Amino acid sequence: MVGYAPYVEALGDLLGRQKVVTSGMMQEAERCRAALEQARAGQVVALISSGDAGVYGMAGLAMEMAAAEGFAVDMEVIPGITAANSAAALMGAPLMLDSASISLSDLLVPWEMIVKRLEAVAAADLVVALYNPRSRKRVMQLEEATRIFRLHRPGTTPVGIATAVGSEEEQLVLTDLDHLLQQEVGMRSVVVVGNSSTRMIDGRMVTPRGYY
Amino acid sequence: MVGYAPYVEALGDLLGRQKVVTSGMMQEAERCRAALEQARAGQVVALISSGDAGVYGMAGLAMEMAAAEGFAVDMEVIPGITAANSAAALMGAPLMLDSASISLSDLLVPWEMIVKRLEAVAAADLVVALYNPRSRKRVMQLEEATRIFRLHRPGTTPVGIATAVGSEEEQLVLTDLDHLLQQEVGMRSVVVVGNSSTRMIDGRMVTPRGYY
Repeated sequence: MVGYAPYVEALGDLLGRQKVVTSGMMQEAERCRAALEQARAGQVVALISSGDAGVYGMAGLAMEMAAAEGFAVDMEVIPGITAANSAAALMGAPLMLDSASISLSDLLVPWEMIVKRLEAVAAADLVVALYNPRSRKRVMQLEEATRIFRLHRPGTTPVGIATAVGSEEEQLVLTDLDHLLQQEVGMRSVVVVGNSSTRMIDGRMVTPRGYY
Repeated sequence: MVGYAPYVEALGDLLGRQKVVTSGMMQEAERCRAALEQARAGQVVALISSGDAGVYGMAGLAMEMAAAEGFAVDMEVIPGITAANSAAALMGAPLMLDSASISLSDLLVPWEMIVKRLEAVAAADLVVALYNPRSRKRVMQLEEATRIFRLHRPGTTPVGIATAVGSEEEQLVLTDLDHLLQQEVGMRSVVVVGNSSTRMIDGRMVTPRGYY
């Protein structure tokens, strides 16, 4: 089992006598290489991501690295429940119809491209799940995203903030575009911005399918 | 247990002595109402969707109907692995970064809005998962979507078609925009269209995170 320490810890009872290799944050490449090396040595290796390993996770990196560094190992991606979907389930049903997922982290994608994407999906009335919305050092991005959405959607547009879903610190805030920036949002949060038809129904955030 | 018959059947061993209420395709409202009636009568009811009930599924409809028709019942959404994610896992790792999900079915969303969304996400270089890409009666929509993507992306852009994922009929085709329309695509297919950085790596469709 190879993974970021908190993710491996979260396995709880599922961890038996497997050999465990953990590493800290921001050491993704190193972690991935450790997994590939163990696999090449004949071990059956699980490289753990939170959510879905194929969504802002380790699956793609493992494939890139295997090709670039010559690790000829078999790989299988086991899909998981991505953060947008577990957050949405807690909020109600905001992702019922067309939607987009956009990460506000400009570590791997240039900020200009992220802005272009935000403008496109805001104008096309898509419900949007924002990954990595804010960190201690990265505050401007969520402000800018909110400004872009406000150009295309009323301030009363429902917004959900789900933080640390599935953990003991799980928190849910249902608010709207005009009040989003006053809320606590961090690295473990997913922010879902509704579209023109999303509304609050009995305390839940729902994008109706149009039956009513 | 309330659900479309094939979904309930797919439960297999998980089905014990629960009371089962099934119904055919296109009877979603009826099925939902049956679930709400059973719940109001004091039963603990599971309303089954395939994939994630909150993504083109039954969760939102149940909430809309409960409010509109006065069913005061407790509801919890259990998130699942949505079709885009299970399809992506089979293809490789195409959804690693920002992406959109768009349904080509114009049953509940006007076709003009779907076109607007396709144009927006194609221009913003998002990887896109197309739900309900084609049916026997609905062929034009995938042709039009392909035309729109071709305006913004080269014909060699990788495209994955995953059909009936997780079933015995599971099928995977990896092709490109220029050859998409020659492939078999049906109601059980999800089509994933890569963006400008998506590429084939050792037979897998990957959107690189930019480490290499």
